[in-house]
Amino acid sequence: MPVLIVGSVALDNVKTPVEERTDLLGGSGSYGAVAASFFEPPQLVAVVGSDFPGTHLDYLKSRKIDLTGLQQAEGSTFRWSGEYMLDMNQRQTLSVELNVFEHFNPTLPDAYRKTPYVLLGNIAPSLQSRVLDQIETPRFVMADTMDLWITVARHDLEHLLKRLDLIVLNDMEAKLLTDQPNLIKAAHAIRKMGPRYVCIKKGEHGAMLFGDPGAGEFFSCPSFPVANLIDPTGAGDCFAGGLAGHLARGDQPVVKFAELRQAIVYGSVLASYAVESFSFERLRKLRPAEIEARYAEFQRISQF
Amino acid sequence: MPVLIVGSVALDNVKTPVEERTDLLGGSGSYGAVAASFFEPPQLVAVVGSDFPGTHLDYLKSRKIDLTGLQQAEGSTFRWSGEYMLDMNQRQTLSVELNVFEHFNPTLPDAYRKTPYVLLGNIAPSLQSRVLDQIETPRFVMADTMDLWITVARHDLEHLLKRLDLIVLNDMEAKLLTDQPNLIKAAHAIRKMGPRYVCIKKGEHGAMLFGDPGAGEFFSCPSFPVANLIDPTGAGDCFAGGLAGHLARGDQPVVKFAELRQAIVYGSVLASYAVESFSFERLRKLRPAEIEARYAEFQRISQF
Repeated sequence: MPVLIVGSVALDNVKTPVEERTDLLGGSGSYGAVAASFFEPPQLVAVVGSDFPGTHLDYLKSRKIDLTGLQQAEGSTFRWSGEYMLDMNQRQTLSVELNVFEHFNPTLPDAYRKTPYVLLGNIAPSLQSRVLDQIETPRFVMADTMDLWITVARHDLEHLLKRLDLIVLNDMEAKLLTDQPNLIKAAHAIRKMGPRYVCIKKGEHGAMLFGDPGAGEFFSCPSFPVANLIDPTGAGDCFAGGLAGHLARGDQPVVKFAELRQAIVYGSVLASYAVESFSFERLRKLRPAEIEARYAEFQRISQF
Repeated sequence: MPVLIVGSVALDNVKTPVEERTDLLGGSGSYGAVAASFFEPPQLVAVVGSDFPGTHLDYLKSRKIDLTGLQQAEGSTFRWSGEYMLDMNQRQTLSVELNVFEHFNPTLPDAYRKTPYVLLGNIAPSLQSRVLDQIETPRFVMADTMDLWITVARHDLEHLLKRLDLIVLNDMEAKLLTDQPNLIKAAHAIRKMGPRYVCIKKGEHGAMLFGDPGAGEFFSCPSFPVANLIDPTGAGDCFAGGLAGHLARGDQPVVKFAELRQAIVYGSVLASYAVESFSFERLRKLRPAEIEARYAEFQRISQF
């Protein structure tokens, strides 16, 4: 089943303690769609500027990503610059240039309107809602978000939350959204805001999934150990994209908790490969068999 | 099989964002021995002052802990005061009074010298070594440590590390000891310093166990989710004590990696109960069936 993904397609400048790279392909839409593409063909909704390199477009096409919903507008592509600190878990955004993203108001191609699986990647919640409005009968709607939207667009985000099956956010964002320092209490507070499932990403510490506590719907997993962490950019987007792609591949009439557990592990596997290089360098070489091998390895290292 | 545990027996003052308690039973020896006592009878090596309450002694005896090695010396019992911040993951030590611990130089009772399982709880590494010197042919030697000893007694700690089968330490301590921000690299650097196994505790984020990478000896688990976290004091000591107690219960000629995985989960289960109350309040009521139930629940929530 196809999976619709909306998000940013960006040009990134990334600085780590050992290296600096410019004009990298980045953005929540790119990372999400490429990660999902290992499981099912994604439909991408996004915008790029007239400066967007053809080689980046070629790569997205090579991943069998449907780009009918990718607008090319006059002006510059969205740009993000960030720097990672020594421990690679902290980063500082150095600059954000919205550019063509500022006036992005997507109209979905007809072929996208019946897509059952929807990943609203990390962009403004009003934009996420506008995309969701155009989908006729989505089966499972996921969204990612970030601290910025919790702070500057809380009302829009609260409105969106009521329409989601699953919200994915990190531990700091869960605390910020609920003003609750305990992550378990924070997750249940977020469930009360709308989504049936809440997934809290904890970076190198793994992820937790919360559903109906009465039905015992709780899952917690570590992250896959990455000794050679090169660039964490896009890890969260690949996590969400891998998760969404696996669910779309499953194509169940109703998404069950057991399937979500596996989807979270597949998301973690995609993220673990993404961080082994800058931008998409590792993902470009990634083979499906490597995904399954790391999934099996993940089982092995977490069983007791 | 008995398990020998050396550590502090303390009187704690603990302040959390909601409550303050004084003169609580605490210390790495007390927590470690009580946790281990749910699996095998521990032998405790420690010292208390003449002010140590008989009710605390009675509780330790009620847990079938062998107190032949617990000295009662003239003077005051070791005291620790600490305060937890709002998120309960950060704490500040307000004061430490070594008191009778300052001149503690344990001589092991004869009955302790042949004990196969040894947990050197968190005390000065020179003292840990002195206890280990007196044990004839230990089968499996574990030690816990803390940032203080890494900073002020690094040489003693390095000496001790060469004699250990397993070192247990937290993520910050592993980074401090190795000057390596990546935990996986840090763990392998510590293995090169001596111990065959390295366990890195990450508090609410679980734990990782590193052995021979060539043999695929790696294990990672989340923590058991505790929504009602009351007092984290002693969690790390209970983790180590539960781990040691489970190994002693197993009584295998050689400790295998599979057994260590399970021991880590049992340690996590004991820690998860300990933090549900101040001091030993929850552990006093804990029944063995509850431990097995939470172990089974731990499997359920981490399987995929």
